[in-house]
Amino acid sequence: MNQPNPVLTAPALRGSDPLERCRDLVTPALRGTVDRLHPDLARLAAYSFGWTEAAGGGGSGKSVRPALALLSAEAVGGTAEAAVPGAVAVELVHVFSLVHDDIMDGDERRRHRPTLWKAFGVGPALLVGDALLALAADVLARTPDAVALAAAGQLSGMLVDLSNGQAEDLAFEGRPWTGPQAVTLADYQRLALLKTGALLGCATGLGALLGGAPAEVVTTMTQFGRQLGVAFQAVDDLLGIWGDPAATGKPVFSDLRARKKTLPVVAALGALGPAATELAALLGTPHTDERALRRAADLIDAAGGRALAAEHARRHLDGARRSIDAAAVDPTAAAQLHQMVAFIVDRAH
Amino acid sequence: MNQPNPVLTAPALRGSDPLERCRDLVTPALRGTVDRLHPDLARLAAYSFGWTEAAGGGGSGKSVRPALALLSAEAVGGTAEAAVPGAVAVELVHVFSLVHDDIMDGDERRRHRPTLWKAFGVGPALLVGDALLALAADVLARTPDAVALAAAGQLSGMLVDLSNGQAEDLAFEGRPWTGPQAVTLADYQRLALLKTGALLGCATGLGALLGGAPAEVVTTMTQFGRQLGVAFQAVDDLLGIWGDPAATGKPVFSDLRARKKTLPVVAALGALGPAATELAALLGTPHTDERALRRAADLIDAAGGRALAAEHARRHLDGARRSIDAAAVDPTAAAQLHQMVAFIVDRAH
Repeated sequence: MNQPNPVLTAPALRGSDPLERCRDLVTPALRGTVDRLHPDLARLAAYSFGWTEAAGGGGSGKSVRPALALLSAEAVGGTAEAAVPGAVAVELVHVFSLVHDDIMDGDERRRHRPTLWKAFGVGPALLVGDALLALAADVLARTPDAVALAAAGQLSGMLVDLSNGQAEDLAFEGRPWTGPQAVTLADYQRLALLKTGALLGCATGLGALLGGAPAEVVTTMTQFGRQLGVAFQAVDDLLGIWGDPAATGKPVFSDLRARKKTLPVVAALGALGPAATELAALLGTPHTDERALRRAADLIDAAGGRALAAEHARRHLDGARRSIDAAAVDPTAAAQLHQMVAFIVDRAH
Repeated sequence: MNQPNPVLTAPALRGSDPLERCRDLVTPALRGTVDRLHPDLARLAAYSFGWTEAAGGGGSGKSVRPALALLSAEAVGGTAEAAVPGAVAVELVHVFSLVHDDIMDGDERRRHRPTLWKAFGVGPALLVGDALLALAADVLARTPDAVALAAAGQLSGMLVDLSNGQAEDLAFEGRPWTGPQAVTLADYQRLALLKTGALLGCATGLGALLGGAPAEVVTTMTQFGRQLGVAFQAVDDLLGIWGDPAATGKPVFSDLRARKKTLPVVAALGALGPAATELAALLGTPHTDERALRRAADLIDAAGGRALAAEHARRHLDGARRSIDAAAVDPTAAAQLHQMVAFIVDRAH
């Protein structure tokens, strides 16, 4: 427990790149599942998965969630193959949530391309999302496995969490920056668990479940994914303010421009002192000019919001790593999961 | 099989009104399920279910689908109580599909009220639909029953059908009225099975499954609901042209105004003769004045489209009734199902 992490240099015994190996296992199953859709839907789904462009912008994404499911199955002593339905379901839900969230948030670009609704219209994009969700539920219901019902329950419970998280996220927008109605760190933490923790926890929990782990190990592995998700969200929040636009694909200070109540801001506003006071006054009116946004970013930093968010990420990453070590029986898969943790946080996509 | 229907005057032995009895069983479970949502979502869901208005316009709907599930369970010798999770899931999916379809179709009014997206915005309405779908899957996954996995599979398979049906419906809009690319009766039939048959077939099939029926009886009861759905759609298509606006809540000739490729139109265009030729010419350009719409309706009638749609409905209703008689072991529930069939087609909501 809480050992120094021996992993970043560990040899990847089961193939050169675990992400690549997982993608090779999952992609055919994922494509076969999407092919069950009406050709019009399958075509738009392919765009969302990044399967349609030969070159430029797109790319097929990093398939981090499926890899977490497969490696979790191996970590508890099962086979990656057993977890493929879980990996497929989780990736379908991931893309479903991107497609619908982009409609709700009015986001026009993702991964350097127009979002699905922007490219094809709200109605078709909405329907593609629904179809991916239906497929996700169907993939698990058709798994010929004794734990299929428990797996279906993990997925559907996560879907309820995702919806409630998105509702809370929308509610955040209407709340003030300061005062008794302001978003607290506890509110933020609850949201991060629902929005980001639920899906990653489902990926690792489903992997452990389909890998044949007993209930308490499934719980620990679910916990691993949830902590990783919360850490990931904190890193994402940091990048949303201080990230390099070339790497994130979003404009500089994008989350400040969008007036999002992210962890660094919530933490900074909760601090006492002149920086927090000036920040609250600055946020009181919308700003789009880069000078004001830069000043807000500097104030968040000065008030300690940046450091607190980084510490929050670190703490949850440590927790995630401890969960791996507590649950894993296969050292190779455990090492690759530790690698994944580092990869996810470094790349923060 | 194919006996004269003895049912419309049958005494309702298990309570004065089967619809009311079913509603009393299902509503608390349905409300308890919706209460699991974020308060913002639960409030909008309540609007969609018609629970929020004390008087006027709204009303809580007729709960036909839950009643079909419960009565199907009783018809095969089970209890209505066993089928409550199925009834709840089916009603959640029904309202989900209304909410999302209204967004996709841009429909602004339903049941004499603004649609959810019109009243609260596209984003919130989209999210409520997603949440209802998640709850539907979760209700079945948490059913402590040996057949819960099969039930989850019935539901998820139906959800895939619904998405594919909606995609086909959208594709119909882009197809020409005549020529080799025109919508054929076979195309229409396939769409009706996916769009309307799938949900009602899921209601009756889930009811039979949760009622403890063997596989072949579940298949027959699924078939019953599918045929009923196809008949219902044909009646709905007739009302979309010739229905009384006071009863349907839609403007006169609404489906012609919206240029929908419904059964009477598809059948009329497929006929030979001067009426079909004049109809094709008339449909070639959009019309909104009532005189032209009335002329189109008359031509559809003259070309035999109205009679064919009525015959189509009749034939599928007969098939539905035969399926009830083939599968039912409980005469009271069977009689009430026959009553429901008559009710659904008479009211055609």
